[in-house]
Amino acid sequence: MSVIALSGGVGGAKLALGLNHVLPPGALKIVANTGDDFYHYGLRICPDIDTLLYTLSGLASRERGWGRDDESWKMMETLESLGDDTWFRLGDADLALHLVRTQRLRRGESLTQVTDYLRRRLGIAADVLPMSDDSVRTFVHTDNGVLGFQEYFVRHRCEPVVQRIVFEGCERARVSAGVSRAFASPDLEAIFLCPSNPYLSIDPILAVPGIRTLILKRSVPCIAVSPLIGGQAVKGPTGKIMGELGIPATNAALAHHYRGLIDGLVIDTRDASDAAGIDLPVLVHPTLMSTDLHKSRLANFVREGTSVVRPVLSS
Amino acid sequence: MSVIALSGGVGGAKLALGLNHVLPPGALKIVANTGDDFYHYGLRICPDIDTLLYTLSGLASRERGWGRDDESWKMMETLESLGDDTWFRLGDADLALHLVRTQRLRRGESLTQVTDYLRRRLGIAADVLPMSDDSVRTFVHTDNGVLGFQEYFVRHRCEPVVQRIVFEGCERARVSAGVSRAFASPDLEAIFLCPSNPYLSIDPILAVPGIRTLILKRSVPCIAVSPLIGGQAVKGPTGKIMGELGIPATNAALAHHYRGLIDGLVIDTRDASDAAGIDLPVLVHPTLMSTDLHKSRLANFVREGTSVVRPVLSS
Repeated sequence: MSVIALSGGVGGAKLALGLNHVLPPGALKIVANTGDDFYHYGLRICPDIDTLLYTLSGLASRERGWGRDDESWKMMETLESLGDDTWFRLGDADLALHLVRTQRLRRGESLTQVTDYLRRRLGIAADVLPMSDDSVRTFVHTDNGVLGFQEYFVRHRCEPVVQRIVFEGCERARVSAGVSRAFASPDLEAIFLCPSNPYLSIDPILAVPGIRTLILKRSVPCIAVSPLIGGQAVKGPTGKIMGELGIPATNAALAHHYRGLIDGLVIDTRDASDAAGIDLPVLVHPTLMSTDLHKSRLANFVREGTSVVRPVLSS
Repeated sequence: MSVIALSGGVGGAKLALGLNHVLPPGALKIVANTGDDFYHYGLRICPDIDTLLYTLSGLASRERGWGRDDESWKMMETLESLGDDTWFRLGDADLALHLVRTQRLRRGESLTQVTDYLRRRLGIAADVLPMSDDSVRTFVHTDNGVLGFQEYFVRHRCEPVVQRIVFEGCERARVSAGVSRAFASPDLEAIFLCPSNPYLSIDPILAVPGIRTLILKRSVPCIAVSPLIGGQAVKGPTGKIMGELGIPATNAALAHHYRGLIDGLVIDTRDASDAAGIDLPVLVHPTLMSTDLHKSRLANFVREGTSVVRPVLSS
C-alpha cells in the first residue's frame, strides 16, 4: 500500500511523523511545499523539506518549532560580529544540510534526488518528494509591499496585512517525477492534506500544474486535516491570513477552499459544532499534536477515516 | 610612505603582521596569493587571504597554523554524520567569513572589494590586496597525478613528488586595480617578498602578467626574506619541493630563483655562511618568528635593510 500526504512545515510535519509511525515502512509519500525555498548566503534553504527531514528523523527542535534540537550558533555569532544580516537564523549543524544540498544541486542533481539522498542518510523510511524540481516562489502582497515568503514569515513575523499570495513560476513548474509516480502507483490507498497553512503551504503545491488535476481525478479518498482550532492555527498565521483575505476563519470556509479536492475534513473536537455547516463528511478528533502519541492517534484516525468517506469526483 | 609585501599564507602572514606593527598605520599593502583559492561546498575559500586576515586581526589559531583560534566544529561533525567529505576542515566561525565573501561575490563585488570590506570589519589597518580579481588556480603535477593545490596540500599532505607547478588561467589574469595603484603610489618606499613558499605562494603572484614587470622595473628596493632555515621551511614543503624539482634547497638557489627581482636577501643567522655563495647583498637575522616580538624585530630589520641595498634594475 501507499499513501500520499501533502505537507508544509511544522503542523504538516507533525501529522507526517504520525503517519510514518502507523503506516507500513515506506508506505508514506510526502509531497512537500517548496514555495518557501530561497537562497541565503548562496545556500539553498528549503524550510518545509528541512522541517520534514528533521521532524521525521527525530532531530527537530521541540522548543523552537524549526531547525534542529542539538544546535549551536557559532557561525551566526561570527556573522553578527562581521556586521551582517542575521534575521534568518542558521544553526551550525543545520548549515551542513544546506551545504550538502547546495553542492549536490550545483553538481546537477535534482532537488528530488538530493532530498532522497538526505532522507536516506537521516534514516527516514518515508519518501519526501519536492512538489517540483522547478523554482516556485511564494510572494506575499501586503500593506507593507511585496515580500518574499521568508521576509514575510521570519523577518516581519507575519505582521503585515496580507492582500494577495502569488506563487511565482508556478505556471511553468513541472510536477516532479517522484510525485507523478506516487500518484500513479497502483497501490495508492489515500491522499491526505496535512494541517499546514492552506494558503501558504498547501496552495503552492496545488498551484503546480497537474497536481490539482491529479487530486481532482483521484480514485482514492482524499481527507484534509484542518489546521484550525477555535478559528486559530496552533502555530502560524492561518487564522490571521483568512481574516485579512476576507475569508471567515472557519472550518466551513476551509472545506469550501478545498471543494472538489477532498472527500472528508477532520476537525478538532472543540469545533465539533462546525460540522453542521459543512457539506462534506466531517470527522471529529483532537487535532492538537503535542506528543508523539497524539500524532500517532490522529494519524490512525485519519487513516481509518478513509474507510468511511468515498471519493467525490468532480464531473 | 607605503610598502608592498607579496605574501602567501602562514610564514608570509607572520612577517606581514610584524610589518603592520612597525610601519605607520595604513602604510602596508599586502599583495596576496589567490592561486590556492577554490570553491568548496559552493563557498569561495581563499586560504592565503584568510590566513592574512586572521593573523593580522589577531584571530588566527596559533596551534593549528590555519583557521581561527576560538573555533568550533559542529557543522563539520554534522557533515561527517551525513557521510560527506571532510578532508578540508571548515570551522563554524570560519564559515561566516566564507558565506559573507561568497554572497558578496555573487552580488557582483570583486574579490578586491570583498577583501577590503572584510579587513575593515576585522579592524585591520593594512591593505590586503588579492593579486588579481580573475581566477588563477595552482595545479601541482605529481607522481600521483595532477592535483588541485588544496588536494595536494591538505588532502595528500604534500606527500606526492612534485614534477611541475602550473598556474592555470594566469596568462589571462589581470593585475587587480588595488595592486596597480599600490605599485604606482608615489610614496612607495620598498617591496618585500615574504618568507612564503617561493614556488607555491610567491610564483603565482609573479605569474600574473604585469606584476613581475612592475617589480623588475622598480625604483625602490626589493628585499626577499628566505623561508629556509637549514635547508628546510619552518612549516610547509619548500625544501621538499625544491629537492623534487631538482633544485638544491639552499639560499643561493633561492637568490637565483628571484634574480632580477630582488636587491637583497634576508637569511637566518644559522645559515650565515650561505652568504658567500650569493651574488647579492645578504642580510643576516634570526628569521624564526615564534612570538610577536620576533615578528616585529624581523620586520624592523627588513625595513631598515632597504637603506643598505639599492635597486639593481634589469636592463
